[in-house]
Amino acid sequence: SARRRGSTGRPWGGEYKHPGGLKGKVLTLDSMNPNVKRVEYAVRGPIVQRAVQIEKELKEGAKKPFTEVIKANIGDAHAMGQKPITFFRQVLALCSYPALLEDSKFPEDAKQRARRILEACGGHSIGAYSASQGIECIRQDVARYIEKRDGGIPSNPDNIYLSTGASDAIVTILKLLVCGEGRDRTGVMISIPQYPLYSAALADLGAVQINYYLDEDNCWSLNITELRRALSAAREHCNPRVLCIINPGNPTGQVQSRQCIEDVIRFAKEEHLFLMADEVYQDNVYAEGCQFHSFKKVLFEMGPEYSNTVEMASFHSTSKCYMGECGFRGGYMEVINLDPEVKAQLIKLVSVRLCPPVPGQALLDLVVNPPQPDEPSYATFMKERTAVLSALAEKARLTEQIFNTVPGITCNPVQGAMYTFPRITLPQKAIDKAKLGLVPDMFYCMRLLDEEGICLVPGSGFGQREGTYHFRMTILPPTEKLKVVLQKIREFQLRFTQEFS
Amino acid sequence: SARRRGSTGRPWGGEYKHPGGLKGKVLTLDSMNPNVKRVEYAVRGPIVQRAVQIEKELKEGAKKPFTEVIKANIGDAHAMGQKPITFFRQVLALCSYPALLEDSKFPEDAKQRARRILEACGGHSIGAYSASQGIECIRQDVARYIEKRDGGIPSNPDNIYLSTGASDAIVTILKLLVCGEGRDRTGVMISIPQYPLYSAALADLGAVQINYYLDEDNCWSLNITELRRALSAAREHCNPRVLCIINPGNPTGQVQSRQCIEDVIRFAKEEHLFLMADEVYQDNVYAEGCQFHSFKKVLFEMGPEYSNTVEMASFHSTSKCYMGECGFRGGYMEVINLDPEVKAQLIKLVSVRLCPPVPGQALLDLVVNPPQPDEPSYATFMKERTAVLSALAEKARLTEQIFNTVPGITCNPVQGAMYTFPRITLPQKAIDKAKLGLVPDMFYCMRLLDEEGICLVPGSGFGQREGTYHFRMTILPPTEKLKVVLQKIREFQLRFTQEFS
Repeated sequence: SARRRGSTGRPWGGEYKHPGGLKGKVLTLDSMNPNVKRVEYAVRGPIVQRAVQIEKELKEGAKKPFTEVIKANIGDAHAMGQKPITFFRQVLALCSYPALLEDSKFPEDAKQRARRILEACGGHSIGAYSASQGIECIRQDVARYIEKRDGGIPSNPDNIYLSTGASDAIVTILKLLVCGEGRDRTGVMISIPQYPLYSAALADLGAVQINYYLDEDNCWSLNITELRRALSAAREHCNPRVLCIINPGNPTGQVQSRQCIEDVIRFAKEEHLFLMADEVYQDNVYAEGCQFHSFKKVLFEMGPEYSNTVEMASFHSTSKCYMGECGFRGGYMEVINLDPEVKAQLIKLVSVRLCPPVPGQALLDLVVNPPQPDEPSYATFMKERTAVLSALAEKARLTEQIFNTVPGITCNPVQGAMYTFPRITLPQKAIDKAKLGLVPDMFYCMRLLDEEGICLVPGSGFGQREGTYHFRMTILPPTEKLKVVLQKIREFQLRFTQEFS
Repeated sequence: SARRRGSTGRPWGGEYKHPGGLKGKVLTLDSMNPNVKRVEYAVRGPIVQRAVQIEKELKEGAKKPFTEVIKANIGDAHAMGQKPITFFRQVLALCSYPALLEDSKFPEDAKQRARRILEACGGHSIGAYSASQGIECIRQDVARYIEKRDGGIPSNPDNIYLSTGASDAIVTILKLLVCGEGRDRTGVMISIPQYPLYSAALADLGAVQINYYLDEDNCWSLNITELRRALSAAREHCNPRVLCIINPGNPTGQVQSRQCIEDVIRFAKEEHLFLMADEVYQDNVYAEGCQFHSFKKVLFEMGPEYSNTVEMASFHSTSKCYMGECGFRGGYMEVINLDPEVKAQLIKLVSVRLCPPVPGQALLDLVVNPPQPDEPSYATFMKERTAVLSALAEKARLTEQIFNTVPGITCNPVQGAMYTFPRITLPQKAIDKAKLGLVPDMFYCMRLLDEEGICLVPGSGFGQREGTYHFRMTILPPTEKLKVVLQKIREFQLRFTQEFS
C-alpha cells in the first residue's frame, strides 16, 4: 500500500513522501474509491476502445483486411443508419428556435406540440430548468400513455419521474434501496446474463449482487425455481430486497409470457422484494405468439391484494423501440406503491441535479403523444415507425436463421429487444491459449475485431454460466450490412475452429 | 425501528408483519439509504415547494396580496425572461432537423457549425450516443477555448470531459475521491456559505464536510488563515483530501483576486489537497477592478513546481454566464495532473451512463466556438451577449445600492456571479417566534413569500456563521421587475422589524 502515516498520525497528512522525496499524488489507484474500481461496463469496455483505435488507424491509411469497423456492440440505432422520426425532429427544431413557428413549411400538429411544450417551460424556453421531477404536462402525457397501453389501468402523473435516459432512474431507485452493512447489506437480484448497468451500479453503491440464471435451453426464460434458489442462497450472507427484471430481455432478446410475469409478481410479494421492471424495449417484440405485457398491467390485473401492496418501479426510455434517440437521454419511471415519505426523499434527491435535460423531456413527450389519425403528420409518422419495426423483425429472424446454420454457434430466437446472444463452442486449445491473457470469449471477440472489423461484446461482460461462451450482437445494422456481418462471423467461426482444432 | 428478525434470522426475510397482520413496505424512511436522508438542497427545498403551491392557488383564482410569484431563488435566466442567443438556437434547430440546412433563412456560419457537429455524430444524428467522454471535436474546441482564455497555456482535449451540466462532473470527481472509514474517511473542504450541491453530494457519498468560512466583512473573501484553521481541526477526525472553491462565488458573488488564487494553490500543494475549481460564472464579473482568473492559468504561471504537481479539476457549464441555457444540461471539466490510471477509471465510470446529452454537447460547442468577427452572425451575437452582461452588471450595482439603504439589511458588492447574499438583522422576538418551528431566516423568507410573492432561499440553506442570518437572491429579474422586488423586500423588512420590535 502507498499509504503511510506521518507524524500527525493522519494518512496523507502532508508528511508522506515518495522514495524520490516527492509527494505522491492525492488521487491514485491505491487511494481512490474502491467501489469505483470494482465497476465494470463491457458494452464500452476494452474491445470498444480497441475498435476506436482501429478506426483511427484506418483513417490514417493503415491497411487492414477490412475498410470499416462495424460496431454491433451497442444498441445505437442512429449510428447504424436508422433515420430519426421526422415529426419528432420537426418539433424539436421548433422548440429550439421558436422563430420557426412562423414558417409555413412545418405542419400544424408539430407546431401545436411545440407551442404546448414551450408554454410549459419557464420563460417559454427549453433553456430554463424544469421541475426536478420533469415538466408537469409531460408527466401527464406519460400517465395517459401508460393508461392507454395498459387498457385503462389508471396512472398518476405524481408517480411519474422523468429522467436522463432510463439508466439515471434505475441508479436513483437503487440508491434509495441500498443500505446496511455486512450481512445486513442490501442484496439485489439480477438476471444472468444481465445488462451491465446493473452490476456497475451495484458495485458503485457497494450493494450485494445476487445472480439468477436465465434458462438458455428454454429461450432464456425466467424460472421461478431458479429465483428461489438464488434468493435462498443469498439470504445466508445479505439482505435481499430488490428483484430486477429486463423485459424484453437485454442481452438475451427473450419476451416474458404473461404467466411468467404473474409468477414473478407473486414471488416478489411472497418474498417481500421491491420490483424493478426495465421495460425500455416495450415496442420491440418480433416473434409470433409473443406480446409485451407490462408488469404494471399484470400487477393490477392480479387484484388489489397485489396492486395495493407490491412496490415497483418501471423504466422507459427514448433510446430504444422505433425511436432510437439515444443522444437525447430522455426517459421516465413510474413508481407504484412507493411510500409517500420515500417519495418526498426521492424528489429531494433528484432536485440536487436540478432537472433532466429538457430537450430529452420534450422528445419523450412526443413519444408518448405521437401524431393522431386526424393530424397531418400521422401518415408519415406511421410509415416511418412501421418501417423501422418491420425491418427489425426481419433482421431478428434473419439473425437467428443464419447463426443456426453455423457449426459451433447456437442461437435462441430474437423474440424482442435488439440483440442476439448466441452461444459459441470454443475449441479447448483456443480456451487454453486465451486463458494466458484473456477470458476466452474476449479472446474470440478481439480476434474477430482484428480480422473482420466487427465489434461485438463478449458474453463474459454480461455474465453466463461457468464454462459457456457467448457474445452479444445488435441486430441494428441495415439488412444488407447485417447479412455481410453474419457471413463474416460465419467465416471467422469456421476459421477460428479450424485454427484451434 | 421497524426492523425485526424473522425465523430465518434475516431482517425483511418475509417474516416481518405489521401489527395489523400486513407486511410493511420494503422501502420506508426507516429502511432506506441513510445517506440519502441526510441530503439537503435548499435551492429547491420547502420554500420553493410552497412557491409552486401558491402559483397553483393563484391560477385557480385565489386572492393574494400579489398577482404573481417572482422566483429569485435559482439562477434560471430564461425563466426570468432572458432571451436565448439567436445563433445558438439556430444551430440547435439545424442539428435537430437537418432538412433545414437547405433553408436559405439560416446564416452560413450557423449551417457550417451544424454540419461540423453532425459529421462528428454517429450516423450524422444527434440522436446517436457519443463517446462517453464527449464528442472528440467538441473536446478539441473546448481545449482551444481554454487556451485562448488562459493566454496560450496549453490544454489537452484528453483532459476534457463533457458532462450533464457542471453538477454531474463535480459529483463524478468527488465520487472518485471519497473513500476510507472512520477517521480515515475522506474530508472535503467547502466554503461557507456554499452552493448546496456540495453538501448534498458529500452527504450522499458519506464524505466528511469540512467548513471554511468566507470573510463577510471583507467582501466574502477567502482567507488562508481560516483554511488552515479548518484543515487542522478536521485532521483530528478525518482525512482531508479535497479543497473546493467557487469563483466567482455562489451564493456570495465575490470574485477572487489573483493573489488569493495563488495563495490557495500554494496551500493546496503544501497540504496535499486535490483542488476543485467551480468556475461556472467565469463570464459574470461586474465590479470595477475585478477580473476572472482561472485557477488553471494561475497554476501554470506559478511555474512547473506547481503546474506539474497540483491535481485539479475545473468545471464549466452552459447554464450561466450570458447563455443561461440551464435546460440543456451542458458542461465540461478539465482535469490537470490526474493520475493516468485514475483517468482510465474515470472514463470507465462515465461510460456506465453512456454519454452526456448530445444537444447539450452541441450547445457547449457553440459557447466555446462562437461566431467570429468575419462571420455573418457575429454582430448579432455580440449585441445579444453584451446586452445580457451589461444588464447583469447594472442589476448587480442596483441591488447592492438599494439593499444598503434598507435598515437591517447589509449587502456586499455583487462583484460577480448572479446572486446577492445580504445579511439581515432579525429582531430577537422574531428569532424566538421562528424557533418554535423554523430556522429564523426560513421563517423570514416564508413570510416574505406569503406576503409579497417573492421566493428567496434562506441563508441557512447555504450555511452561515452561527447567529447570523441571510438570504440568497438572484439578480436575474428584468431591471424594472428587479426594482419592484427590491422595493417590496425593503417594505417587508421594515414591516417585519416593526412587527417584532
